[in-house]
Amino acid sequence: MSGRHSKQDLERTPDDDILRKLEGHWDKSPTRALRWRKKVDVRELDCNGTPGWDGDRDDAERLVAAHAFELAQLQERLFAHGRSGGSRSVLLVLQGLDTAGKGGIVRHVVGLVDPQGVQHRAFGVPTAEEASHGYLWRIRNALPRPGYIGVFDRSHYEQVLVVRVDGLEPEETWRAHYEEINAFEAEVAAAGTVIVKVALLVSRDEQKARLRERLDRPEKHWKYNPGDLAARARFGDYLDAYQEMLEQTSTDVAAWHVVPADRKWFARLAVTELLLDALRSLDLGWPPADFDVAEQRRLLDET
Amino acid sequence: MSGRHSKQDLERTPDDDILRKLEGHWDKSPTRALRWRKKVDVRELDCNGTPGWDGDRDDAERLVAAHAFELAQLQERLFAHGRSGGSRSVLLVLQGLDTAGKGGIVRHVVGLVDPQGVQHRAFGVPTAEEASHGYLWRIRNALPRPGYIGVFDRSHYEQVLVVRVDGLEPEETWRAHYEEINAFEAEVAAAGTVIVKVALLVSRDEQKARLRERLDRPEKHWKYNPGDLAARARFGDYLDAYQEMLEQTSTDVAAWHVVPADRKWFARLAVTELLLDALRSLDLGWPPADFDVAEQRRLLDET
Repeated sequence: MSGRHSKQDLERTPDDDILRKLEGHWDKSPTRALRWRKKVDVRELDCNGTPGWDGDRDDAERLVAAHAFELAQLQERLFAHGRSGGSRSVLLVLQGLDTAGKGGIVRHVVGLVDPQGVQHRAFGVPTAEEASHGYLWRIRNALPRPGYIGVFDRSHYEQVLVVRVDGLEPEETWRAHYEEINAFEAEVAAAGTVIVKVALLVSRDEQKARLRERLDRPEKHWKYNPGDLAARARFGDYLDAYQEMLEQTSTDVAAWHVVPADRKWFARLAVTELLLDALRSLDLGWPPADFDVAEQRRLLDET
Repeated sequence: MSGRHSKQDLERTPDDDILRKLEGHWDKSPTRALRWRKKVDVRELDCNGTPGWDGDRDDAERLVAAHAFELAQLQERLFAHGRSGGSRSVLLVLQGLDTAGKGGIVRHVVGLVDPQGVQHRAFGVPTAEEASHGYLWRIRNALPRPGYIGVFDRSHYEQVLVVRVDGLEPEETWRAHYEEINAFEAEVAAAGTVIVKVALLVSRDEQKARLRERLDRPEKHWKYNPGDLAARARFGDYLDAYQEMLEQTSTDVAAWHVVPADRKWFARLAVTELLLDALRSLDLGWPPADFDVAEQRRLLDET
């Protein structure tokens, strides 16, 4: 799993000096730079900003390419551990309003690692079967197995976002979800999963431009849903819901990261780096052989 | 879904002249060149060969890179159709002996397309629940939904391969599977799935070298299983099983393709091209809007 097809730029470790220089555009670790902090109000966020990063688009794309090798290597180690009885996994939770770029993140960031090691799941309106269970049922079923990177495009957080904004449950019901979710995530983390939660924040103007593009380009019509305008009309309500979600569910074991998403290149850089930090935090080596290597060599030689 | 992160080489349509020249290394369409034909005996196959292809490794890697753009585009169209009520999907079935390179194919070929549009499934020894059902149960559960590319790393064919070679079922039982499988695949194809079956054939010598590498490199120990030697001891029996599988289950709606796999670059090229041919055969345009575009533009402008 050391890279992607014939892209030599990703197959080798990049030059150390270049890498350090690119990494130097972060003023602290991406995880620290982007982690939600009390008093940060997403309603006042500059969605065009690049918090913690002073490089430009070109630097960002070069750093993503430079880190792709390490990302793929660490993912393979995680996978190897899963195959060897390890319990660790990573769960990337992506939340964002329509057009915030969740799909692009999956394509461009998750696409950097081996598809064999990824469990991707997009959560839409619950099916009849899903709706017949509690809202965490389908989430539990989709949790990454040991060794895997799970990717949730939307998640259990819809239960305190669209459910709240559209009034699908009484306030006392959805408000109780904060505590349920915190308990659920603590359980998931305790079982060995590193949880990386990312809220992608797009501005009202940028959302309009992106919706407009979907209408103007026939090859993007399939991505457009007239219902998107109804959600857009509740933009402020959604930001209120996001703000309270961050305040109530950013915990030590499952912190939220706030990523301004008007610049796609920054959002992709940010999630690449958050994923890399998560994999690095596992600090995994290669699993040792659970067989006698010399004996197997001898047996193989005889064949 | 127009490409991968910042790799500009894949983001744009490659130069037509270069593309035609690279494609010209095939003496016929890859699907025709690699399709199993009666009288072709895998026990006599040159696993180091590159049937139908007269280019070298560099040409092959350049063609894969050049086709990655079209592959990603066609996969997005398929996905768009699935979202718009279409019924089409693609199923790539990968079979091969240990070390034949199935995993590398998934990483390098399937990795060329958007992970959001891929349903990957590796079939190992059946779990207790799986074993309590018929062998096609877990296969049916893993079939690609409309719009998706399904990838099976091993498949229902294990039921006429390892099951036969290890004597896990009486001959009359496993022999009956040929007809069951053909009926099953005919049903799957009739429902809209293009089935691409690939048998990756590695030579006995190359398998030995690859197993040896797994023993010699500590970071590959996790890929090694002492049981691989038992399977290796039955190499000839497996080839007999492969041969009969090809003879009995290569049908018009679900043909087998035989890919010599001693040269990894050729196997990756071959599967890329087979997948591309399958997507092209769907001949999909972009789904038309199911809403009034002008009205939506007006409504959006008002927001």
